[in-house]
Amino acid sequence: MAGGDTKKSKANASGGGKKKEVKKETGLGITNRKDDNFGEWYSEVVVNAELIEYYDISGCYILRPWAMSIWEIMQTFFDAEIKKMNIQNCYFPLFVSPGVLQKEKDHVEGFAPEVAWVTKSGESDLEVPIAIRPTSETVMYPYYSKWIRGHRDLPLKLNQWCNVVRWEFSNPTPFIRSREFLWQEGHTAFATKAEADAEVLDVLELYRRIYEEFLAIPVVKGKKSELEKFAGGLYTTSVEAFIPNNGRGIQGATSHCLGQNFAKMFEINFEDEKGEKGMVWQNSWAYSTRTIGVMVMVHGDDKGLVLPPKVASVQVIVIPVPYKDADTKGIFDACSATVDALSEAGIRAKADFRDNYSPGWKYSNWEMKGVPLRIEIGPKDLANNQVRAVRRDNSSKIDIPRASLVEQVKEMLDKIQQSLFDVAKQKRDACVQTVKTWDEFVEALGQRKLILAPWCDEEEVEKDVKARTKGEMGAAKSLCSPFDQPELPEGTKCFASGKPAKKWTYWGRSY
Amino acid sequence: MAGGDTKKSKANASGGGKKKEVKKETGLGITNRKDDNFGEWYSEVVVNAELIEYYDISGCYILRPWAMSIWEIMQTFFDAEIKKMNIQNCYFPLFVSPGVLQKEKDHVEGFAPEVAWVTKSGESDLEVPIAIRPTSETVMYPYYSKWIRGHRDLPLKLNQWCNVVRWEFSNPTPFIRSREFLWQEGHTAFATKAEADAEVLDVLELYRRIYEEFLAIPVVKGKKSELEKFAGGLYTTSVEAFIPNNGRGIQGATSHCLGQNFAKMFEINFEDEKGEKGMVWQNSWAYSTRTIGVMVMVHGDDKGLVLPPKVASVQVIVIPVPYKDADTKGIFDACSATVDALSEAGIRAKADFRDNYSPGWKYSNWEMKGVPLRIEIGPKDLANNQVRAVRRDNSSKIDIPRASLVEQVKEMLDKIQQSLFDVAKQKRDACVQTVKTWDEFVEALGQRKLILAPWCDEEEVEKDVKARTKGEMGAAKSLCSPFDQPELPEGTKCFASGKPAKKWTYWGRSY
Repeated sequence: MAGGDTKKSKANASGGGKKKEVKKETGLGITNRKDDNFGEWYSEVVVNAELIEYYDISGCYILRPWAMSIWEIMQTFFDAEIKKMNIQNCYFPLFVSPGVLQKEKDHVEGFAPEVAWVTKSGESDLEVPIAIRPTSETVMYPYYSKWIRGHRDLPLKLNQWCNVVRWEFSNPTPFIRSREFLWQEGHTAFATKAEADAEVLDVLELYRRIYEEFLAIPVVKGKKSELEKFAGGLYTTSVEAFIPNNGRGIQGATSHCLGQNFAKMFEINFEDEKGEKGMVWQNSWAYSTRTIGVMVMVHGDDKGLVLPPKVASVQVIVIPVPYKDADTKGIFDACSATVDALSEAGIRAKADFRDNYSPGWKYSNWEMKGVPLRIEIGPKDLANNQVRAVRRDNSSKIDIPRASLVEQVKEMLDKIQQSLFDVAKQKRDACVQTVKTWDEFVEALGQRKLILAPWCDEEEVEKDVKARTKGEMGAAKSLCSPFDQPELPEGTKCFASGKPAKKWTYWGRSY
Repeated sequence: MAGGDTKKSKANASGGGKKKEVKKETGLGITNRKDDNFGEWYSEVVVNAELIEYYDISGCYILRPWAMSIWEIMQTFFDAEIKKMNIQNCYFPLFVSPGVLQKEKDHVEGFAPEVAWVTKSGESDLEVPIAIRPTSETVMYPYYSKWIRGHRDLPLKLNQWCNVVRWEFSNPTPFIRSREFLWQEGHTAFATKAEADAEVLDVLELYRRIYEEFLAIPVVKGKKSELEKFAGGLYTTSVEAFIPNNGRGIQGATSHCLGQNFAKMFEINFEDEKGEKGMVWQNSWAYSTRTIGVMVMVHGDDKGLVLPPKVASVQVIVIPVPYKDADTKGIFDACSATVDALSEAGIRAKADFRDNYSPGWKYSNWEMKGVPLRIEIGPKDLANNQVRAVRRDNSSKIDIPRASLVEQVKEMLDKIQQSLFDVAKQKRDACVQTVKTWDEFVEALGQRKLILAPWCDEEEVEKDVKARTKGEMGAAKSLCSPFDQPELPEGTKCFASGKPAKKWTYWGRSY
């Protein structure tokens, strides 16, 4: 009962006793430790923190309000940013006809095994089976072909917020790998490659900001290998996160330049200024509810979820700590006044006035749910005209005079946000291992490192690396070649093939 | 070419000529008249105004940005209002297992014929076919049963914004009847019937506000008959709109009290304050993208779409009207300054600086797209330090001094919003016919009226009315019994059965 142990010191005398009693009844607390049994710990946290409820269809999960509010905060940010870029929202159908789905050969090969097919309505068989979108390139582009005639119709920049379905069979994991998930998918078309290239990076920067500024998770921006790029695209960029506990990389979000492959298949042509026929350059880019899973994995601890303040729907939980002879009404009023003052200043605060739980139980409960800052108000605090603030991330406590409440709480929330990022970065960086030889690579892989290695950038070599590292834990693969490249001295050889290295690339096992 | 004819007077000399020429090339304008061929007119407007693109799967439609922005404005309003009511957003899966779907007998009977079934993924058959949600009662309520234990877990109030699928075969119509559509669905559970009853009406009031305050469409609030209520529910309330052009009623949105039927089937029980077992009272309520279709039908005219200012993503379109010798740069600058001034005041304004279209063409184009207010700036306006404003709804023109621009534009937008509602209400009211006998009823039905009749409120009688009015145009049915009941004198008889009447009810053909 890790959640309980670490909290005893925080409960007051009466609360402490009662808490234990209540806890037995409700099973409060996280029973698995993050370091001992990461997979079980993750499943327990997403359920106990009320982010997820398991569903009776495997690989499908219920997003509860506590998760949905995180998604909505990121959505509000991203939607406003893309609107500034003159990208407009639209909504294309969930269903795709087979003919269209199969138009781009590489693309359909990439997705076909995971496509869910509708074959019946009511009691009747459909004339032709209809696919459910795994992504919307083939859904949208026949219409891009129709809408785009001349250079004045370009750029065409659309986005949609929707659900997609990929009927995967391997290891369903809430948020990280689910058969249905929520995402945004942007689909844009330009007259020139230069414009497309620029947008790929502009959007990737927004994804970096979602991870680093909102979720407090350090990511590496880079380019995917030919083997790992989007099926049918020209090149793929991504933000890559890393989970130190199991040494797995995780693709955070992707921004693809599709080149002209889809334009050719779907005949998306335009007449340029000189009256000559051109073919558009296209991008597509997406991030999904997977973001939330990465956040749980990176910041969560043995007490449960840890929410970065920027994405917490409750940033501050205010808990009254009444005591026998104390002025209970005064304490409750002080709690209400605290919530009011914080709310007025734009801080998302809430009081927990439930009378059937002890303060200690409430501490554990809100810690499990990851609320960044707890404010306790007891008789002593009331007498001293102060509140006690306790940080979720590092358990540090501070007494705040009520006169400077808003100012100090704001400052603490900023500090928590920064500190979560700093700690996560420190942990991630500690896992980075630079290797130069195959032996070093194998050793680092065994140590679950995020491996940076000089590479010849040949597809066959990556296939070979995969084959040679196959095993129970899954094969290693390239994660990305970081845009921020360390110096590559002349004559450096590929760690895997011994051929001349062309770039530094991150490798590892991944989700 | 109705769109063109009515606009000639507005084009300046040079613009008028060029417009005609351009028009032939692009097919600009609506060719069907609303009064002559309503169905064709509707299809043409939704496509030409760029709300909809037809899709290669029948009954599915693409919502283009011009439609999506309307949906988002309503969503922003409604989402904020339900959050004030402490209703939280969540997301449940798209898929339903057959066992759960079939749990509530009446409910599944209502939806089964329209359910789409997934039976394959990739090349493999699924072990058990999986349904796509037509609505989410059966998706959600097994979990309500799990989450609700005691009275402190109540009320449970969730909402989701999502897509649903109903594989209908009759008359697919963009927005109005489509196989996939977007909606919100609220699902709430209470300890008492009184709380559920109150919420049904609170939500219905929000739906009234969406129609009347945002879409400028008058609706009747009322209760559905037993035959027309939600399958499996206790009673259904709705806001009902009316389309004068074809004399059809249209259900605008519904707020259902489900009573305890689902609670019984899904065992949603709780322990009350006294430790006794109770069963929850439930509601569900929804409005969909159908709202947009009703708006097109009610306000559109022979020039195209007419957008109420409150839901227009562009409320004011500013068009430069350069002239041979005139100060073109001065005119363009004045347009930009106008847009800036309006935007700063929170008015959604945009200038159309395209150089390959004449002012006249632009007038027609933005009229077709329904922008509420057009501002023209030509040499004379520049000289007089004024702009010319032209209302979309009634074509009235007014010169506005630039000094009072923001103030007067705001006022005009408010007036347009109100006037659209007033005109729509006047037209709707003119269609209401009160009848007392079957003969009067049949005559009024032939005249496509919205019929108010005294009714005995018996299910068999409604079935009989349907049977007796069956025909090419579809049978008549009850629309709702308005909450606002006219006096019903003692001894009044049912128009259809001759039995004592219990209430006034609206009848008619409907969508």
